[in-house]
Amino acid sequence: MNLSNDLILRVLSGEVTNRPPVWLMRQAGRILPGYRAVRSSVSGFKALVTNPELASQVTIEPVEVLGVDAAIIFSDILVIPEAMGLDYELVEKVGPVFPKTIRETKDVELLKEGEEAAEHLKYVYEAVRLTRKELDGRVPLIGFSGAPWTLLSYMVEGRGSKTFFKAKRFLYQNEEGSHLLLQKLTNSIICYLKHKIQSGAQVIQLFDSWAGILDNTLYERFGLPYLGMICEAITEVPVIVFARGAWFSLDKLNDLPCAALGIDWHISPVYARKVCGQGRVLQGNLDPVCLMSDPQMIANRSLQTIKGFGHHHIMNLGHGVYPETPLDHVKHFVEVVKSYNYP
Amino acid sequence: MNLSNDLILRVLSGEVTNRPPVWLMRQAGRILPGYRAVRSSVSGFKALVTNPELASQVTIEPVEVLGVDAAIIFSDILVIPEAMGLDYELVEKVGPVFPKTIRETKDVELLKEGEEAAEHLKYVYEAVRLTRKELDGRVPLIGFSGAPWTLLSYMVEGRGSKTFFKAKRFLYQNEEGSHLLLQKLTNSIICYLKHKIQSGAQVIQLFDSWAGILDNTLYERFGLPYLGMICEAITEVPVIVFARGAWFSLDKLNDLPCAALGIDWHISPVYARKVCGQGRVLQGNLDPVCLMSDPQMIANRSLQTIKGFGHHHIMNLGHGVYPETPLDHVKHFVEVVKSYNYP
Repeated sequence: MNLSNDLILRVLSGEVTNRPPVWLMRQAGRILPGYRAVRSSVSGFKALVTNPELASQVTIEPVEVLGVDAAIIFSDILVIPEAMGLDYELVEKVGPVFPKTIRETKDVELLKEGEEAAEHLKYVYEAVRLTRKELDGRVPLIGFSGAPWTLLSYMVEGRGSKTFFKAKRFLYQNEEGSHLLLQKLTNSIICYLKHKIQSGAQVIQLFDSWAGILDNTLYERFGLPYLGMICEAITEVPVIVFARGAWFSLDKLNDLPCAALGIDWHISPVYARKVCGQGRVLQGNLDPVCLMSDPQMIANRSLQTIKGFGHHHIMNLGHGVYPETPLDHVKHFVEVVKSYNYP
Repeated sequence: MNLSNDLILRVLSGEVTNRPPVWLMRQAGRILPGYRAVRSSVSGFKALVTNPELASQVTIEPVEVLGVDAAIIFSDILVIPEAMGLDYELVEKVGPVFPKTIRETKDVELLKEGEEAAEHLKYVYEAVRLTRKELDGRVPLIGFSGAPWTLLSYMVEGRGSKTFFKAKRFLYQNEEGSHLLLQKLTNSIICYLKHKIQSGAQVIQLFDSWAGILDNTLYERFGLPYLGMICEAITEVPVIVFARGAWFSLDKLNDLPCAALGIDWHISPVYARKVCGQGRVLQGNLDPVCLMSDPQMIANRSLQTIKGFGHHHIMNLGHGVYPETPLDHVKHFVEVVKSYNYP
């Protein structure tokens, strides 16, 4: 591995660096003109996800335009349910919709899992290979997966929801079916991530985007154990776990055998350090709406965040960057972080 | 005041009782057949809110059908913005929509406030009077208001939102306009609540439903100070503050001069007691989705919650009851609580 910028890998390995590395969740997205051009040239979001050349192209754009310290492969968390046999569609203004959902244990039994599921995702592995080649060592490439609970929530609920009551009801009513599905998801995710790593991913991030709709009792039963299995299985590269909204289980998340934890914007750096300790690598957590304010506010809050976390920190937002964010503000944010030097 | 059931008032005054009182947020709603019949007999939700006889009728139904220990006047938090001059509509499957929103300080300057706003809400005061008469001392009547930050968020955003980025951006970009609006809202809410109390409300609950989209820095600047002003102004009856999602400021909420704090379902009873102390009156916090599971699960989790909080507790859900909840399950929940006796 011959990288001209390996800052994020050094921080993930526990090194003390001169400044924090910086990247943004959803950096390859609608804030960028190149992305919007590619997106409007194809017939839908999935046409972009399944095309390795285009996925690679939009993955690299933020490295060149924003100057971030890492690329993250452009893809979608719902490729895993689809590879397991549950197709989804992306409906304009609605988001992902599963025409068929998981309602009982026998629906779970019909799903493919592990290698049999992961082998359907060759287009992702090809996108990773192309991107590594094209990046040519400029920055490390992050691969990712949705976490088992978050994927279950879509597969049962069928679409985004304010309450996700169907998904949560499934946990209450069908504990056995829930664990069967979570285990099948875990087995599939592990195979998927191993392929991604073999294809060139140098860091893995797990997105448990809907962790925050549970409470500590449910999350510690249905969320955390499966994250633990994945972290234990992925030993080749550092793993970052981002369980959005799961402040109530932060102490348990801190016990996971992973390289770093993502911190959402609701958790103050002071609180995160109090629970996780000064030596834990943490990632985040500027409020994405802050990037919509003025340059001075962006600089002030970014520096507050950097100083709040101290060393062993990867700068990022506390959520994906919102599509409505002005590009100049995002550039300014990256520049502020890159100009900083720890005292 | 001659009440045959004053359990909730006794708990709110700090008394140790034999069992916790129980009511549900949104108990006067779509879970009840009488409500659905009334709702379908009028031309829209607002026609129901502005009709004192019908509002009173649906307020009383849960007392009779569910046997809860309190009634809460049927109304809507957005009557305050409307009384201040910002009209809203209720759009099917979208929710509240403000055709005109607050975009700059001069929009705020045009708003009515205080008594001049509160005098537009005579239909609410009349509904309270009718309901007190009709309840005839069976249980106490709760009046409520949206909290200033939550009302601001609708007035600026214009409708419900996943991110409320416009409302939050307003806080970052226009601190002066934000404080002006929050102060005008506070002045109006205080007058409104005084009228409600004069008309017969025996408890007040403040709903800060969107507290949880902020962080502790923003909430302690734009949310909490105004809650404090309202709590200080309302000395006639006990005030319950429910700041949904604001776990990050629970210690500061605990310092408010109010009779009780609502606790959402993300916060475990153990955590709530650790932060707020054993003597603080707390309300909540069963996960509303638990009511969709089976009777045994409902009983187990309800008892866990009751035992978790101990004395000085009002049983409730950690959010409004979901419309999809089977009525029998809600009745079972109320019966479980009412059959309980503290050891």
